[in-house]
Amino acid sequence: MPRKNFADKLIGEIDRKGAPICVGIDPRLELLPEKIRDKAIKKSGGTLESAAQAYLEFSRQIIDVVAPQIPAVKLQIAFFELLGWQGLKVYKKIVDYAHDRGLLVIGDIKRSDIGTTAEAYARAHLGEVRLGRKRFRPWDEDAVTVNAYLGSDGIRPFIDEAAKRGRGVFVLLRTSNPSASEIQDLVSRGKPVYLHLAGRIKKWGAGLIGECGYSAIGAVVAANRPEDARHLRKIMPQNYFLMPGYGAQGAGAKDVIYGFKRDGYGALITASRSIIYAYREPRHRRFGQKRWLDAVQSATLEMKEAINKALESKT
Amino acid sequence: MPRKNFADKLIGEIDRKGAPICVGIDPRLELLPEKIRDKAIKKSGGTLESAAQAYLEFSRQIIDVVAPQIPAVKLQIAFFELLGWQGLKVYKKIVDYAHDRGLLVIGDIKRSDIGTTAEAYARAHLGEVRLGRKRFRPWDEDAVTVNAYLGSDGIRPFIDEAAKRGRGVFVLLRTSNPSASEIQDLVSRGKPVYLHLAGRIKKWGAGLIGECGYSAIGAVVAANRPEDARHLRKIMPQNYFLMPGYGAQGAGAKDVIYGFKRDGYGALITASRSIIYAYREPRHRRFGQKRWLDAVQSATLEMKEAINKALESKT
Repeated sequence: MPRKNFADKLIGEIDRKGAPICVGIDPRLELLPEKIRDKAIKKSGGTLESAAQAYLEFSRQIIDVVAPQIPAVKLQIAFFELLGWQGLKVYKKIVDYAHDRGLLVIGDIKRSDIGTTAEAYARAHLGEVRLGRKRFRPWDEDAVTVNAYLGSDGIRPFIDEAAKRGRGVFVLLRTSNPSASEIQDLVSRGKPVYLHLAGRIKKWGAGLIGECGYSAIGAVVAANRPEDARHLRKIMPQNYFLMPGYGAQGAGAKDVIYGFKRDGYGALITASRSIIYAYREPRHRRFGQKRWLDAVQSATLEMKEAINKALESKT
Repeated sequence: MPRKNFADKLIGEIDRKGAPICVGIDPRLELLPEKIRDKAIKKSGGTLESAAQAYLEFSRQIIDVVAPQIPAVKLQIAFFELLGWQGLKVYKKIVDYAHDRGLLVIGDIKRSDIGTTAEAYARAHLGEVRLGRKRFRPWDEDAVTVNAYLGSDGIRPFIDEAAKRGRGVFVLLRTSNPSASEIQDLVSRGKPVYLHLAGRIKKWGAGLIGECGYSAIGAVVAANRPEDARHLRKIMPQNYFLMPGYGAQGAGAKDVIYGFKRDGYGALITASRSIIYAYREPRHRRFGQKRWLDAVQSATLEMKEAINKALESKT
């Protein structure tokens, strides 16, 4: 294993930037500032390439603004996949751009498969491909999200790449959507399915504990289920939580605080819409379309302050 | 809903080609015939593009051979994703090529997410993107596989696209890997998790029954678990089964037969490695590297005969 694991790197960046915050980059054409959207769509009459170009411009500008403030960005690959391979070509450019600006990149890919297929996904995103003497990193994220319905076989290849290359994995554990309960809450042997999965994640991560005491294998835990976060935090003390749902999805600083341990670490809080489309929200509307980046800046700083304040009162 | 749903189209093609068989295209560089691999890798010194070009040549040649014999191909997107966007650009070319040759295309993508993100995946693969007055189909598969750990919210967008456009969805239900049991077999209220999911799939598909009596929403059921297939076949009579695991993964014609109903329909049996890399298997090794396509042809016909024979004795 590399000396520093993904959690060590993450904590290093959290300390350096002074906030356990991640901005989610979820480009959606209908929500982009008009200037960016119109330029890209009109220019070449509207193609998947030109739409992807708009995503690139939008994402780069956000990265420039948030890079000094936060440790990591999370890219939602589905929105890029919606623009075909042209969108995914831009996804890779944004991963590289974020790295150049000193950010860790979490690929929100939620992939799931088994055997050699899971290996292909793991190598694609966290590892490398050898072609003769040359090596390529097709996507090169620092960490990815994965789905564990298929069990250990589907997760093992990701763990192996994480161990080999100092990468991270966040296993989908507790989601925030209304129907999450259909499978996750089925009770078996006295506890819901997601708590069985929590036990698995703990085991999967046990061999990859870093200098900081946290594993490279973490979990995705909804920010808007504070009671669940509190319980999970207790039973899996060495797994980092990636917590989406802050802001637009309704969770506030008081909710997400349960994801942290007494040491002030253990959770990376993610906000997407409430940051990147802040100019559309009543509280930041004063900036307007033209100053949409100032709205991004303002929303990021606000979130940072709110979470740091809540954390101070906890630790 | 379009007049004919995906199951109607599938059954039409099964009748026309005379076999409920699907060939899985899983290109892996280390298994390709040397001639194709060497040409692509040497030519430009080995890049993701040149490797993707090898996948394209390999897949097109297979499609040319199997198109007259079978109703559908299944493309495993993970192997293309391993070559970055360059690989996915070729994935799309193969979808189009297979359509041109009269094949239905199943995208084995196993995507999972919720809300607008699930919508993005669903539109990307089964629907379309509007850019001004123009419309694009980014991936354009006829059906895809999806993962339901997140519940109905994650599946609904796929069902909606399927209903609108005559597309199909296969929900991961019962997989063949050793660790499948970790989540799928947890027993809740007297039955394992996967049987709870079976009930959901039934409900999700109930509004999309076609002329043939089958829903556009089907399930992925491992071919090498005949007892499970038999039970699932009984409790969800209107959902088509996509059954991987024939051949290389150990299931034979006698195993997969349980996926069919008395009408001779209800299952689409998939074989990947045992067909596309048949030239590497002892029983087809006589063809050698040079005649690898004859091995594909021979293995396809053998599988077709074996399954039709087993079906005759059932119906």
